[in-house]
This record gives sequence, structure tokens and C-alpha cells, in this order.
Amino acid sequence: MPEWIYPDFEPLPVRPLFLCVISNTDTGKIPGLSAAGTTPELTDYTPGADAELVETNRIITMPELPEAPGGSPTPAIVTKAALNLTGIPSMFVASGLRKKPAVPYVELGGAAGSDIRMSSALPDARTIYENAALLGRKLSSLSDCVFIGESIAGGTTTALAVLRALGYDCGVSSSFQSNPTALKEEVVAQALRRAGVKQGDLRKDPLKAIEEVGDPMMPAALGLIRGLKGCRAVLAGGTQMAAVLALAKALAIEGDISIATTKYIIEDRSAGFKEIVESTGRAYYYADPGLERSKIPPVQIYAQGYVKEGVGMGGASLLAGIHGISQDQLVEETDRVLMTVELPKK
Amino acid sequence: MPEWIYPDFEPLPVRPLFLCVISNTDTGKIPGLSAAGTTPELTDYTPGADAELVETNRIITMPELPEAPGGSPTPAIVTKAALNLTGIPSMFVASGLRKKPAVPYVELGGAAGSDIRMSSALPDARTIYENAALLGRKLSSLSDCVFIGESIAGGTTTALAVLRALGYDCGVSSSFQSNPTALKEEVVAQALRRAGVKQGDLRKDPLKAIEEVGDPMMPAALGLIRGLKGCRAVLAGGTQMAAVLALAKALAIEGDISIATTKYIIEDRSAGFKEIVESTGRAYYYADPGLERSKIPPVQIYAQGYVKEGVGMGGASLLAGIHGISQDQLVEETDRVLMTVELPKK
Repeated sequence: MPEWIYPDFEPLPVRPLFLCVISNTDTGKIPGLSAAGTTPELTDYTPGADAELVETNRIITMPELPEAPGGSPTPAIVTKAALNLTGIPSMFVASGLRKKPAVPYVELGGAAGSDIRMSSALPDARTIYENAALLGRKLSSLSDCVFIGESIAGGTTTALAVLRALGYDCGVSSSFQSNPTALKEEVVAQALRRAGVKQGDLRKDPLKAIEEVGDPMMPAALGLIRGLKGCRAVLAGGTQMAAVLALAKALAIEGDISIATTKYIIEDRSAGFKEIVESTGRAYYYADPGLERSKIPPVQIYAQGYVKEGVGMGGASLLAGIHGISQDQLVEETDRVLMTVELPKK
Repeated sequence: MPEWIYPDFEPLPVRPLFLCVISNTDTGKIPGLSAAGTTPELTDYTPGADAELVETNRIITMPELPEAPGGSPTPAIVTKAALNLTGIPSMFVASGLRKKPAVPYVELGGAAGSDIRMSSALPDARTIYENAALLGRKLSSLSDCVFIGESIAGGTTTALAVLRALGYDCGVSSSFQSNPTALKEEVVAQALRRAGVKQGDLRKDPLKAIEEVGDPMMPAALGLIRGLKGCRAVLAGGTQMAAVLALAKALAIEGDISIATTKYIIEDRSAGFKEIVESTGRAYYYADPGLERSKIPPVQIYAQGYVKEGVGMGGASLLAGIHGISQDQLVEETDRVLMTVELPKK
């Protein structure tokens, strides 16, 4: 096992598959909350553009490369690099997605999530959950190890809201270097008030927590891991996926379930990634993509805590590592992906 | 090998996958042309309803069970029975589909095909072809043997048009017992005149033949088999899929490609299934689902040449047979599926 992967991830998957759930939530459009898009309006297009980048190295339906306001490019470039180097197949799964990508993807249906301050997040969580479980069951007979990433702008805030509804006290990460913690807490407090829910009230009704203050990525990821029973399921993400683990525990979903993320999440002191995961009793893994060695400054600053996670970047890096790819190779390929990505003509 | 499967299908697939391309074409709405729906308007909903039936045994988005004007139910019931009995995973693939199913499916994009008498069939055949090839490449690392069925009302007429454009002289099958051959030939003649194409003119430009007089199922099936190179690809259908084989030959697509259908197609004297397939040099297989033994008269009459094929019924039956399912079990399960399918409340 290379030293940039912690701890050993064994056994080596035989037919790994990398899924990535793509969703929209209007919670992500609250100004200052998400760095997944240069303007709140563009965040609707970010998940589809991430899918296009990973599938074809072209951005087709978004006018620009998804990037944070500070100029850091989408973590999809790291995921794409890892998948290029390993040849592991990817599949994007739309759940409550408003702007569809122009590449093949699996459609689970559902509407985009609403602004959780204003109304229930999503009324059709159960349908998405069942549809995703159906898909997971199919994939479990084709793959022995399925990674599940996410791309949903604003997802850490809905994750925080769900964690509070389930009774968790700790915080979540941010795509900003400086976590807008106070704003997130305020949004979550408003959402819980609107829903008439106090901390811990929905401990025994996790689907209700999603319906009220969650987002459409959550029932999709949960349904997938439920359907994948018998196969190894690895959630690939930071505190958003830790919240999914917490929901899975509340739903008593069984199976070989773990979580993989980046070193940047592990080092984020504003967030309780380890605390949440440990409380679920599931294993966690993380990879250090070594992006400080990138030749491109907006990529280098990932290592200073910008972006941190997304599009399953940590899990994909881990897959690269266990398949014998070096950190240097991953960084070099990440730079190459970013330099060669085809953008729409202006 | 059971005696109702011809000839031996070997070796036994290890991780088979059953795909079904679902598409719409306005050519299917020409009165009298297709039996896939009780009225031309309803044919738009048939492919999605077939997906819903196979995935959940429920019809969700169509007001009734898809059936032929004579009352024969959709061949999806046989496919569903075969997949139930074998546990083989299915995945529906939308290409130019107007009415989307309420179950998980893969989206390839593209608009529904137009009435080939009036305008070019589909302008985006190349995009669908490339998207499908991308999907095929992914699936080739998960499965060793992929069956590809279709559900597209009106598809035999567009198949006939494409065959003529490629220079083939023979006929195609029909979902009606009495093939409306004269009407089909008239529609095809009008379409070729409109496109300024004479028989055989597009022998060397198969994608142009699809764009002018084909339908959106064709580039999807072709892209899939191209992407599946290195894996066994079996087209599951009658003369529509034979036309895809002819297109694949013209495109010089390589790989382990064959076709599987029902005995009802093989026995159809109005159509040149064998002739087309033999000219492509590819192997064909067929299964006799034995539906004359059904307890339900509208299913029994399949054996008299109603419906004949669709939703990969022949290929799915073959998969059941090679997995040790008897003809009696398949018929019994087909009846059970039909008797238990959940319909929308009126």
C-alpha cells in the first residue's frame, strides 16, 4: 500500500466501479454558502459539468469550467486524472438534477431540492431511495466494489441540517478555505425552525429528516448502498458523505459500507468528519493527493484547504493509489487534465 | 443446451447484463404501421412503460398496459419473466425518448425521431452514437456478455428504410400478425424520395442513412456494440436488430457480435431476418418461448405470429434457457407477471 493512502484498503477490488451522484439544491444558491460555481446561478450547472469533464474532458452545457470564487478548479479534475490512470469505469447518477449533462448518465428522477429555510427540501425522497436501491441491486451483480461520490453545490449545509435533526452536534466542512460556519448554522437554525424540528427530533425518522432539511443526493446515496448489499460500498466524500453514513445507521442499512476522503478533510478542524464516522462504527480511509506539487497555483492551493473534496476526489485518489499509481503521476495527470479540458467557445 | 434454444450458445456468460434501448419515432404514429400501443398517440409511452414493467412490474407513466390493438400484451412480460427467473440485471437506455419512465434508466440524450416521410429522421445520430460507445466501453469492464434489446414503436419501418438505403432488398417483420407490407413499402418509398436517396445510395454512409430515414434506437445500439468491443455483444431482436447488424457491417464495427431472437421471427415468411443476418456474416440464435402453452389467450396467440418480438424477448428467453430454466417455467412465470402487473388507478 503506498504511504499516501491511510490505512490499508484491502483486498484490492477486482471490478471496481466509480459512481457519482449529481444533484441540485436551492440551498446552494444562498449567497456565501457554496464555492462550487463562481455565481449562485451557475451552481445549478456545476454537477452536470463535472460529469461532462470526467466522462469526456469537455465542458458542454456550462459556459465555463466549474470553479470556486477564488479560482480553484473543480475537484473533478483529480477524479478524472485518477480514473484515466486506472481505467476504472465511472457512471454519473442524476437525482433531483435540474441541468442535465450532455453525456450518458443514469436518471433516478426527483426534483431539485428547495431552499430548506423556505420549504420542505424534497417531497419525493422515498421514491429516489427506492429507485436508487433498484439500481444498486443491479450493480452489485456486476461489480465487487462500488465507490459513490457526489457533486451538489450547497451540500455541506444540508448535511449539517440533517446531522442536527439526527442529534449530532459537530460541524461540517466547506469548499471555502475559511468555512462560513456562522452562516451555515444560521441557515440550519432557520430550516429546523421552519420544519418545527428540534435537534435530535428525527433520530428515528431519517427519511423525514431528508425530506425536511436534506437534499436529493442523500436518498440516492442511501438507496445505492442499501441495494449494493453483498458488494463493498465506499462512500467517497467528506462531511456530506459522513452525514449519509449517519443516515444509513439510523436506517439500519447493513453491509460492507465504509467511507473514503482526502487528507484535506481529515485536517479540517472546523468539521467533525472523524467524530461522525466513528459514531457510525464504519471504517474510513483517506488519500493525500499531494496537490502542493502541482505546477498550477489554483490547484496547489487545494493543499491549503481550498475545495478539499467533491466529485469523489478522495476515493478516486485512493483507487489510483491502490492500483499502483504514484502521487507524482496523479498530480501530473491532474495538471494535464486541467490544461487540456475543452471549454465551450465563447 | 435445452432443445428450445437453437443452436448452442456457448460459453455460458459469467456476468451477463441485459440492456434495452428505448426510443420514440413519429414514424411509429403513422396509422396502421405499429401494433405497439392501442392508439398512435399512446405509442410514445410504450417504451417507458416497458421499462417500468421490467424494472418494477408496475406501469406508472402510461394509463394502461402497452398492448397491440388485437389485445396481446407487450412482450416485456416475457422479458420480465426471464429476468425474474435468472436474476440477470437489466438496464434501460433512453435514446431520443420523449416520455421518460419513472424507474432508473441511462440517458443518452437526443430528440425523438421524426416521421421519415416529412423530414430527416434525426440530426444528432453521431452524438448518440458517441455517447453510446462511451457507455459500452464502461459496461465492457463490468460484464462479459451484454444483450441489447429494443422498444420503439414503428421501428420495423425505419429498419426497412435503412435497409433499402444500404441496398438490401428483403423485407422486415411486424408486430401485427398480418404484416402491413404495402403500407411500409409506401412509407419507405416516400421517405427515400424526400431524402433524395435511391436504393443502395448510402451503402458507404450508414450514419447518413440513420440520420435521413432511421430512428434513435439505431445509433444507440451501434454505439453500444462498438464500445463493448472485447466483450460479447448480442443484439436481442428481430429484423430491427438485423438492420443494426447490417449498419454495423457498413460501419466496419468489429468484435464478438451476434443476434438472438424468437422462433416467431424465424418463421415469419414476410421478412428476411436470416437473409440479412447471413449477409453480415454474424451468428444468430433463437429461442422458442412456447407461449402456445400459456393459460392466457392473448399470450397464446404470440405463437400464431402476433407481436413476435420486442423488448429483447427472444434474447431474454434464450438467457433463461441457457441458465437451466424450462420452457414451462418461462411460460408459467410470463402468465404470473401478466396477472400481477400493477396498473395505474383509473
